[in-house]
Amino acid sequence: MSLIVQKFGGSSVSDAEGIKRVARRIVDTKSAGHDVVVVVSAMGDTTDELLDLANQLTDEAPAREMDMLLSAGERISMALLAMAIDGLGAKASSFTGSQAGMMTDAIHGKARVIEVSPQRVRRAIDRGYVAIVAGFQGMSKESNDITTMGRGGSDTTAVALAAALGADVCEIYTDVDGIYTADPRVVPAARKIDTISSEEMLEMAASGAKILHLRCVEYARRFGVPLHVRSSFSTNEGTWVLPSPDDQIKIQEGEPLEQPIISGVAHDRSEAKVTVIGVPDIPGKAAQIFRVIAGANANIDMIVQNISTAGSGRTDISFTLPMVDGKHVQEALRAEQDEIGFEDISYNENVGKLSLIGAGMRSNPGVSSMFFEALHQAGVNVDMISTSEIRISIVTDANKLDAAVLAIHAAFDLDVEDEATVYGGTGR
Amino acid sequence: MSLIVQKFGGSSVSDAEGIKRVARRIVDTKSAGHDVVVVVSAMGDTTDELLDLANQLTDEAPAREMDMLLSAGERISMALLAMAIDGLGAKASSFTGSQAGMMTDAIHGKARVIEVSPQRVRRAIDRGYVAIVAGFQGMSKESNDITTMGRGGSDTTAVALAAALGADVCEIYTDVDGIYTADPRVVPAARKIDTISSEEMLEMAASGAKILHLRCVEYARRFGVPLHVRSSFSTNEGTWVLPSPDDQIKIQEGEPLEQPIISGVAHDRSEAKVTVIGVPDIPGKAAQIFRVIAGANANIDMIVQNISTAGSGRTDISFTLPMVDGKHVQEALRAEQDEIGFEDISYNENVGKLSLIGAGMRSNPGVSSMFFEALHQAGVNVDMISTSEIRISIVTDANKLDAAVLAIHAAFDLDVEDEATVYGGTGR
Repeated sequence: MSLIVQKFGGSSVSDAEGIKRVARRIVDTKSAGHDVVVVVSAMGDTTDELLDLANQLTDEAPAREMDMLLSAGERISMALLAMAIDGLGAKASSFTGSQAGMMTDAIHGKARVIEVSPQRVRRAIDRGYVAIVAGFQGMSKESNDITTMGRGGSDTTAVALAAALGADVCEIYTDVDGIYTADPRVVPAARKIDTISSEEMLEMAASGAKILHLRCVEYARRFGVPLHVRSSFSTNEGTWVLPSPDDQIKIQEGEPLEQPIISGVAHDRSEAKVTVIGVPDIPGKAAQIFRVIAGANANIDMIVQNISTAGSGRTDISFTLPMVDGKHVQEALRAEQDEIGFEDISYNENVGKLSLIGAGMRSNPGVSSMFFEALHQAGVNVDMISTSEIRISIVTDANKLDAAVLAIHAAFDLDVEDEATVYGGTGR
Repeated sequence: MSLIVQKFGGSSVSDAEGIKRVARRIVDTKSAGHDVVVVVSAMGDTTDELLDLANQLTDEAPAREMDMLLSAGERISMALLAMAIDGLGAKASSFTGSQAGMMTDAIHGKARVIEVSPQRVRRAIDRGYVAIVAGFQGMSKESNDITTMGRGGSDTTAVALAAALGADVCEIYTDVDGIYTADPRVVPAARKIDTISSEEMLEMAASGAKILHLRCVEYARRFGVPLHVRSSFSTNEGTWVLPSPDDQIKIQEGEPLEQPIISGVAHDRSEAKVTVIGVPDIPGKAAQIFRVIAGANANIDMIVQNISTAGSGRTDISFTLPMVDGKHVQEALRAEQDEIGFEDISYNENVGKLSLIGAGMRSNPGVSSMFFEALHQAGVNVDMISTSEIRISIVTDANKLDAAVLAIHAAFDLDVEDEATVYGGTGR
């Protein structure tokens, strides 16, 4: 008997039929002899509908009230799911974020989990109940106010609960059957990945792969929680995201697989590029700029500082950041323009980022040259570059991005013969 | 400066326009220098929509989960209302039932308030905020689960908060401009009541008058909270429900009015009549029957025990109860039929109750005879009778009820010349 945490997203519970299907799946897992804790998101379009109502009332809703509003969505879906499970003859009890002990910091809209005290969830399991927990929401430890963790936060709820409860696995249900070597909408020959290390998954998520929320993978890695990303429409195995090779042995009941050199190619169109032009080339100026950006609560991604033109005493600093932060970061910088002493800001949303990820890069020095050669042959200009031990990323023109992804996927031999089936079971 | 509790029902906040209108009204009260605490119900049809979803999933939803589900409705309306107030430049903070310290017993679906600890609400007021509290919901003191107080429970929330905070008045906003001497849909000549004692209002509410929830009036009376029932569509004075004559002086800034003999006529079509036939006429049998009914958690209203037919050794016991309880009370009784020894049950939903209410009855012995004479002249047969010091009620055929209400309203000189305007302001 295992303790399994199952997370279902909003598209899985968008109507009564969906809720019944999910309930059946949960009851099947319970009937197989497992303890089950479920994390559920708000039904389908609920969040958008609530946001729409809010927009009709005010241009800038207070963040505390926005969290109060949005947290109602999970309250509805979790209670309905508990009813559906009850209707199938099993017992279920639903818990809000605060009832489940999800304590967060006080940053409304993007709160971080700081403590999980799931005593009520544990008691429900011990009494033979399926515990259903609201995803995406918690309670500020400081103010006792309701907080939300931002879109995708339900994944984090699931992993945090799995860690706190010592669950054997955290299953993330989605409408695709696992993680692919690239986005199958861009690369039809993309291949489902059977297992991937959480280290690589972290780089994939950070690089724009949409299936898993970055913080969820971080959390899973830190607390050693095995993730199983799988389809809610089939019972096929999906992709296992494993914190260590030991887990790989445990899961596969055999020898760890030979680690492939490259795990996959990720891309991201959600970022913009900002260039701060004519920054005085004296110590402390870059720090000053990034202090302003941090003050605007924006996460910047890649950073490039150009070499100072001889004699000018000035340099340019470029960075990428989520488009949604573009406006207020520019405003924050302009407010300090005199203080910092830069000349201008340029802002470009027509950029795309491509990342190649693979733990095997560490011991394969030829990867970079093959990477840039493939881009060159595909006619892709590279605008910015950043690397980690297991990742190479570049920024290019948005309209060149698909061609770049296809070229890299092919160059590293990731293509399969038959095209991937995104919906429904492909088997392994 | 006063502390005013304002309660707005679901029809007042059914869409963005309604929410804005209510927000404007609240801000106006705040701007006039008062502290304001608002209690709000779920938006328009939200509750029905949630119930509909639940019905699609299971025939009998667990009561705990039903409360979890329904409590989401106020969470949405209160957060939106806080945003709308913020949009008008005032400050507002919303609180769930549990955050507002509404502690209840553990009877899901019809929980009773057992303690109110509104420290967070008080702090919000002290900081200059409008505090917005979810109506209808609380938290079980025993289990920490979310509870709801049944339809109309938001009125009770408002009064309980007003009492706990020592508010000067609890304003109940509705779509009519006050309490009428009879339902204007039945009696077009019904008159708006300016002031009524909470004792009489209690009898009115218990007798089927729909405007105020019975428990709300009980609570207001017990804790001495003046209620002001008024229209959310006008600024006219509505009906004051006053716990004592002292309040009447205070409110009207003058002498207490001469109390009219009769306050109004109430009617109720929501009850059914049950007759337990052939009950052995021996001590303890009635107690046995009412123990079974209490065990089924039903509130019975009027009771009549027929005189035992000479020599039969058996008697009939009739009572009225809410139709919704009809089925399971009959089942509960039938389950004990052998034990109790009665012969049969008859059940009739085609009945109506009429009540005449007035504190002046006490000192006017002619009221009963005038009452029954008027019914007689209108050709209304009386099936059951019950009385209190300030009320006479009868049960008759449902199809005779309107005629009976009109006859009694006219006989006691309650009619006005011009017909009542239900929507919009009639002035006083």
